[in-house]
Amino acid sequence: MLEKVNLNETCDKETYKNKIEPLKERLASLDQPIKAAGLPVIILFEGWEGAGKGHVISKLILNFDPRWFSMVNTLPPTQEELREPMMWRHWKTIPEQGQMTVMDRSWYQEVSTLRLEGNIDELTNIRHMNEINNFEKGLVDNGYLIIKFFLHISRKEMKKRLESLKEKKSTRWRVTEADERSVKEYDKCYDAYEQMLEYTNSPIAPWHVISAMDERLCCLEVFKIVADEIATALELKKDRDEAAKRTSSVIMPGQYHFVKMPELSEVELKGKILTREEYDKQLKHEQKRLSDLHNRIYLEKIPVIIAYEGWDAAGKGGNIKRVSAALDPRGYEVMPIASPTKEEKNRHFLWRFWTRLPKDGHVAIFDRTWYGRVMVERIEGFCSPADWQRAYGEINDFERQLYDWGAAILKFWIHIDNDEQLRRFNDRQNTPSKQWKITDEDWRNREKWPAYEEAVNDMFRYTSTDFAPWHIIEGNDKYYARVKTLKIINDTIEARLNETKKRKR
Amino acid sequence: MLEKVNLNETCDKETYKNKIEPLKERLASLDQPIKAAGLPVIILFEGWEGAGKGHVISKLILNFDPRWFSMVNTLPPTQEELREPMMWRHWKTIPEQGQMTVMDRSWYQEVSTLRLEGNIDELTNIRHMNEINNFEKGLVDNGYLIIKFFLHISRKEMKKRLESLKEKKSTRWRVTEADERSVKEYDKCYDAYEQMLEYTNSPIAPWHVISAMDERLCCLEVFKIVADEIATALELKKDRDEAAKRTSSVIMPGQYHFVKMPELSEVELKGKILTREEYDKQLKHEQKRLSDLHNRIYLEKIPVIIAYEGWDAAGKGGNIKRVSAALDPRGYEVMPIASPTKEEKNRHFLWRFWTRLPKDGHVAIFDRTWYGRVMVERIEGFCSPADWQRAYGEINDFERQLYDWGAAILKFWIHIDNDEQLRRFNDRQNTPSKQWKITDEDWRNREKWPAYEEAVNDMFRYTSTDFAPWHIIEGNDKYYARVKTLKIINDTIEARLNETKKRKR
Repeated sequence: MLEKVNLNETCDKETYKNKIEPLKERLASLDQPIKAAGLPVIILFEGWEGAGKGHVISKLILNFDPRWFSMVNTLPPTQEELREPMMWRHWKTIPEQGQMTVMDRSWYQEVSTLRLEGNIDELTNIRHMNEINNFEKGLVDNGYLIIKFFLHISRKEMKKRLESLKEKKSTRWRVTEADERSVKEYDKCYDAYEQMLEYTNSPIAPWHVISAMDERLCCLEVFKIVADEIATALELKKDRDEAAKRTSSVIMPGQYHFVKMPELSEVELKGKILTREEYDKQLKHEQKRLSDLHNRIYLEKIPVIIAYEGWDAAGKGGNIKRVSAALDPRGYEVMPIASPTKEEKNRHFLWRFWTRLPKDGHVAIFDRTWYGRVMVERIEGFCSPADWQRAYGEINDFERQLYDWGAAILKFWIHIDNDEQLRRFNDRQNTPSKQWKITDEDWRNREKWPAYEEAVNDMFRYTSTDFAPWHIIEGNDKYYARVKTLKIINDTIEARLNETKKRKR
Repeated sequence: MLEKVNLNETCDKETYKNKIEPLKERLASLDQPIKAAGLPVIILFEGWEGAGKGHVISKLILNFDPRWFSMVNTLPPTQEELREPMMWRHWKTIPEQGQMTVMDRSWYQEVSTLRLEGNIDELTNIRHMNEINNFEKGLVDNGYLIIKFFLHISRKEMKKRLESLKEKKSTRWRVTEADERSVKEYDKCYDAYEQMLEYTNSPIAPWHVISAMDERLCCLEVFKIVADEIATALELKKDRDEAAKRTSSVIMPGQYHFVKMPELSEVELKGKILTREEYDKQLKHEQKRLSDLHNRIYLEKIPVIIAYEGWDAAGKGGNIKRVSAALDPRGYEVMPIASPTKEEKNRHFLWRFWTRLPKDGHVAIFDRTWYGRVMVERIEGFCSPADWQRAYGEINDFERQLYDWGAAILKFWIHIDNDEQLRRFNDRQNTPSKQWKITDEDWRNREKWPAYEEAVNDMFRYTSTDFAPWHIIEGNDKYYARVKTLKIINDTIEARLNETKKRKR
C-alpha cells in the first residue's frame, strides 16, 4: 500500500487557505451531533518517526471542544502492562458513547516498532494482527467508528527532519534512539509497515495512508477524511440502530474446536452426593493441592481465570469461598459482577471484563461473567438479537486471547434442578438471617426458567471450546459440588503447568 | 510503643480452640450489617518481615464472604506511581461504602522500609507522616473505619523464621533482600518503626501493636479487635449520621497562610476589555510563551493543575480552548467534572480528583473542580453542613500535597455580572445552534445567585492559600478574560520553574 502513495504532490499556501477554512467549520460543528447520537469515535495516527503525527494532531484537535475528546499518547508498554494480554492496555482507553479518542500511536505499535525491537517471530506477529482485526471488528460491530491514518514519508525526508531537530538545542532531546534506528533500518521498517497495513486493512476499518511530505496537503487530507467519515457514520447510525433492533444475525461462534456438551435436561443430578466425612477428607486434600499449585502458578507466571455461572441459589458463594480459602490472599481477587454502571453500559460489553483481568501469576474469580450477554441481556432484551447472537464469537475470541496469553481458563455452570431451587428459596424466605439473600427479582427470574434453560444450552453449544470448555457441576449436594469444582480447577491448572513446561523445552 | 508489647505470652491449643470459635462466628456475621449500614472499612497490616502478616490475613478473611472485601497487596511503587504524589496510589485503593479492604502493607511502607531504603531525610519523612495523618483523618471524618495492626517480633525470632524458610527449596524464593536487611539492621528499623508508630498513633485511627511471637495468640487478638471495632463503628454510625445532619462544625481551614481576596461585589468588571486587534496580538504572544513553557515543564517534570470555576455561561469552555490550543496534545488532559457517579459518591469526595491527577511534567485542566463540595453540594444540600465546612481544610491539605509534590496550581474564578449572564442565557435560548448549551437547570441555578455569591466569597476566604491562590478573571469581555488567564498561567509556571531551579542548586 505504501508504494501507491504519491510523495511528490504539494499544496501552495493560497489553495490551502481556501480549502482549510470550510473543513475547519465542518469539523467544529461535529462535537454536538457526535454527543447527541452517542457515537464513539477513535481516530488513530501511525506513521514514520518524524512524519509529523504530533503536528497534524495538534491542528486537528483545535477544531474540537477540549472537554469532549481525550488524547491517548501510546508509549511502549510498562512492566505492569507487559504482565497482561497484549490488547489489555488498549481496551482500557476505548471511549464511551458520544466521546472521541485521538490516538498518537496505538495498538499498531505492537505489530510494528515493538515487533522489530522485540524480535517477535512471524507466527506470533500474525496472531497479534489477528487479535487487532478481531478487536476492531468487535468495536465496529458494537457501534464504534475507527479512523486510521498512516503518515508516510521517504527515507531522505525523514533523515532531513531528524537532522534539523538535532541541530537546535531546544529540540535535540526529542530525537530518540528509535528515531535514529528507523532511518538506519528504513527498508526493514518499510516491510514491517507494509505487512501490517495490508493485513489489517479491513473494510470496516480501512487504512488511510497519506503523504506527510507536504504539511499542508497532509492536514487537508486528514481534515477531509475525518469530517467525511464522521458525517457518514452519523448518517448511517440511526438506520443501523433501527435495523439492529429488528434483524438477527446468523450465529458465528468462530473457527474453533468445540467440545460436545449435554443438554441441561440430560444432566443427572441424583446420586451426586458426598457424606460429611467424605467431604471433609476430600475437601482438605483438594485445598492442599490448590494451595501448592498457587505457589507454582505464581512462580511460573500463569494467570488463572475462574468463571462461575449457575442458577440463583445454586451455591456459587459457598463454592467460591472453599476455593479462595485455599489461595494466598495476595494472589487472587474475587470479582462479583452486578449490572453494569453507566460508564460500562456506554462501552463495548467486554470492556468491564478486560479491565478486571488479573496480572500473570494471579487468580481472578468471577462471580457471574461476560456470559451475562447471552443470558440475562438476551432474555431481558437489554441488547438486540444481533448483539447477543454476535456475542458467542466475540466471547470465544476474548477467551482465546486469554488462552494465548497463557491463562488457565475455568468455566463452571453450577446446576440444580427446579425443585431444589424452590426448596432453597423457601428456606431463605423463612430464615430471618438469610432473608436478605432473596429478592423479588429472584422469584421473577425463577419464572423464566425455561428461557434460561434454552439460553444455557445455546451457550454450551457455542462457547465450549477445547481451550475453554464448560464444566457442569451437579449442585443439589453442595459438598459434592465444591469438591468437584476444586478437583477440576486443580487438574486444569496442573495440565496448564505441564503444557507450559513442554513449550519451554 | 514497641517496648510495651509482651513478647513472652503464649496460648495453648485448648484455650485457642475455645476462644477462637465464638470470634469466628462474630466475624462471619458482620458482612451483612457492614453492607446494610454502608460502612467502609480498611483493615491494614504492617510489621516486621517474617512476622506472619500473610498468615493472619489468610485466617482472618476466611470469615468474610470473598465477594465483599478486596485484598490490597501493597508493593513498592512502580515507575508510573513514582511520578505521582506519594498518597496517589493509596487513594486509588480506598473502598466504597459497605465494602471492606484488607491491606497487606499500606501507606506506612513509605515511612518505614521505603524511607530507609531511599534515604529520605527527616523533614521529608515528617511531611509524609503528616500527609498520612491528614489522609486518615479525612477518611474517618468522612465515615471510614480504619483498623491498623503492627505485628511485632524479636530479632532472634525473625532470624529463626527466615532461616527456616531458607532451608526448604519450596519456600526459599520467598526470602527477599529486604528480609535479610531487616535482620541485619534490626535496630535501625526498630527506631524507624517506633517513630512511625508514635507519630501516626492518632485517637481516630490508633495502632494495635501486637506480639506475633505466638501464632495463636496473635490470631486471637486480631480477630477480637476487628470484631470489636466493627461492632462499635456500626453502633456509632447511625448516631453519627444523624448528628452530622443537624450540627455544624467550626470552619477550620488549616494552618496555612491565606491571601486576602476581595468580595465578589467589589470586583470591577467595567473597562476590562480588549479590542480584536489587541486580543489577536496578545493571545498569540501568550500562547507562544505557554507553548515554550510546556516544553520546559515536560523536561523538568513539573506537574501543572489548572482549575476552572465560574458562573454558568461565564466562558470557561472558550477560555480552556485557548489554553489547550497552545499545548502539545500528548502532554495535557481536560477533565470535565459532571455530577459524581455512584462509585464516586460512595467514596471520599476527593477520590475522583486524586484518581484524575496528571503525571509529573503533564498538565491537567479541570472544568469545574473539587470546589463543588463547597458550592453546589453546600447549596443543594447534597452533603451535610459539617461536611462542607470541614471541606475547606480538606481541600487545602489536598492542594498542599500537590504543591509539595512540585505542582504549579492555578485556580480561576471566571466572573461575569448578573446582567451579562442573562444576556448570554437569552442569546443561547434564541440561537438554534446554541440551544443545547442552556438547560432548565441553568435557569434554576441563576435564581440561586445570592446563595452562590456567599459560597464563592467563603471559598475565597478559606482556600486562597499562598501556594494555591484564587485568581478572579473579569469575564464580561471574553477576549480580556482569555488573555488574562493565559498570562497568569505563564507567570505562575515560570515562577515555579525558577523556584525548582533554585532548590536544585
